[in-house]
Amino acid sequence: MKLYSFGPAANSMKPLLSLYEKALPFESHFVDPRKFEQHSDWYKKINPNAQVPALVHNGNVITESTVICEYLEDEFPDQTPLRPASNYECAQMRVWTKWVDEYFCWCVSTIGWHRMVSQMLEPLSDEEFEEVVANVPIPEQKIKFRRAREGFPQELLDEEMRKIGVSVRKLEARLQESEWLACDQYTLADICNFAIANGMDNGYPELVNEEATPALINWLQRINDRPAVKEMFKKQQSEFEGRNG
Amino acid sequence: MKLYSFGPAANSMKPLLSLYEKALPFESHFVDPRKFEQHSDWYKKINPNAQVPALVHNGNVITESTVICEYLEDEFPDQTPLRPASNYECAQMRVWTKWVDEYFCWCVSTIGWHRMVSQMLEPLSDEEFEEVVANVPIPEQKIKFRRAREGFPQELLDEEMRKIGVSVRKLEARLQESEWLACDQYTLADICNFAIANGMDNGYPELVNEEATPALINWLQRINDRPAVKEMFKKQQSEFEGRNG
Repeated sequence: MKLYSFGPAANSMKPLLSLYEKALPFESHFVDPRKFEQHSDWYKKINPNAQVPALVHNGNVITESTVICEYLEDEFPDQTPLRPASNYECAQMRVWTKWVDEYFCWCVSTIGWHRMVSQMLEPLSDEEFEEVVANVPIPEQKIKFRRAREGFPQELLDEEMRKIGVSVRKLEARLQESEWLACDQYTLADICNFAIANGMDNGYPELVNEEATPALINWLQRINDRPAVKEMFKKQQSEFEGRNG
Repeated sequence: MKLYSFGPAANSMKPLLSLYEKALPFESHFVDPRKFEQHSDWYKKINPNAQVPALVHNGNVITESTVICEYLEDEFPDQTPLRPASNYECAQMRVWTKWVDEYFCWCVSTIGWHRMVSQMLEPLSDEEFEEVVANVPIPEQKIKFRRAREGFPQELLDEEMRKIGVSVRKLEARLQESEWLACDQYTLADICNFAIANGMDNGYPELVNEEATPALINWLQRINDRPAVKEMFKKQQSEFEGRNG
């Protein structure tokens, strides 16, 4: 089993959290976003959409972070199950993972691009930048690269910040009443939301802090304290730094 | 088991297709969009998001059309399985159902609102319209109602039409090489895409026709010819007309 990822952050972190929680052996392959490796010909042979993460297992390529997490449950149901046993609770879990993919991850992603991808593109000449864009297969992604280069419209940034506020309040409200998101156990609902929410107390301190969102802060800490999560960060970060240092 | 739905179209059609294909007995409750019944207090007690479909089973409410379809597979795995037996193919299926929910259904939905919801809102006075909007719990949905009333920006309509073109070509390309979308059997990938694509030869004849998309036309016909699909349309349409006639 081999995972191609950007390392322990955002969508790439979802299958990483699952793999470590389930204690499954796998080979980790870092795709370097600073070198736009995800757009390289060799990677597009693995995923023609040029997106990470991608899992290779039994010669098959599985893409889309949430789909990979469900696949790992289908393949290894008995190794620390991350789906609830009850079908109703499993449906609740999927409402949460779907919400991450359709709402929460997008607003956070735009602000992330505004703050980080823009910086990454700054040193490029116009010619180098056009080469990057030419290698992107998805039209919407090309637009995102152009906006990261030229600056996102302020109206869009404001709208995305509004959505982040909505998301944070939604998580806080749920976590005020329940230890975990979908039911009384740690599931893919927590994993997929944590992958996006972790670090928001640093990135969005005006929204995520002890006073405004105590339950969310507590939940982030509880997940960070899990042995599998600690191990994942330790191993994956040192590998990532080793690779790129 | 009870299904609240808008009848056999769009997202509501997904669980209807599953229920009939699996031959599961259920009570059908039509929520009338022309009376904005989905925003009524009684329905918001079932789904606070004021969206259809919603399934009530064993006293639990399951929402989100794709999640309901997965739930029916979890609960009734042996009655005409609509998920592939292989985990890899199941992942492929989920990439398709996810794509419907994140891309295909949105562009088609905007054009549907532009063409149909706009007409539905026309006879309302400004006061009546504001009452409708006041009952909508989701902010993005409020904006959609305002745009349907005032007219969607042409730029947005053009962009959505571009995405519909992308979607149609993607389906055609896949169906040129495979009888069904996910694998060699009829699955939720077909059900969820069909729910959005059915009737596009009428609604988008410039995009979906015998010359441009022969494989897509053929696939729509093959699904329409399935006994369970025929029965679903027959029973659900007559109930729907009976209710609202």
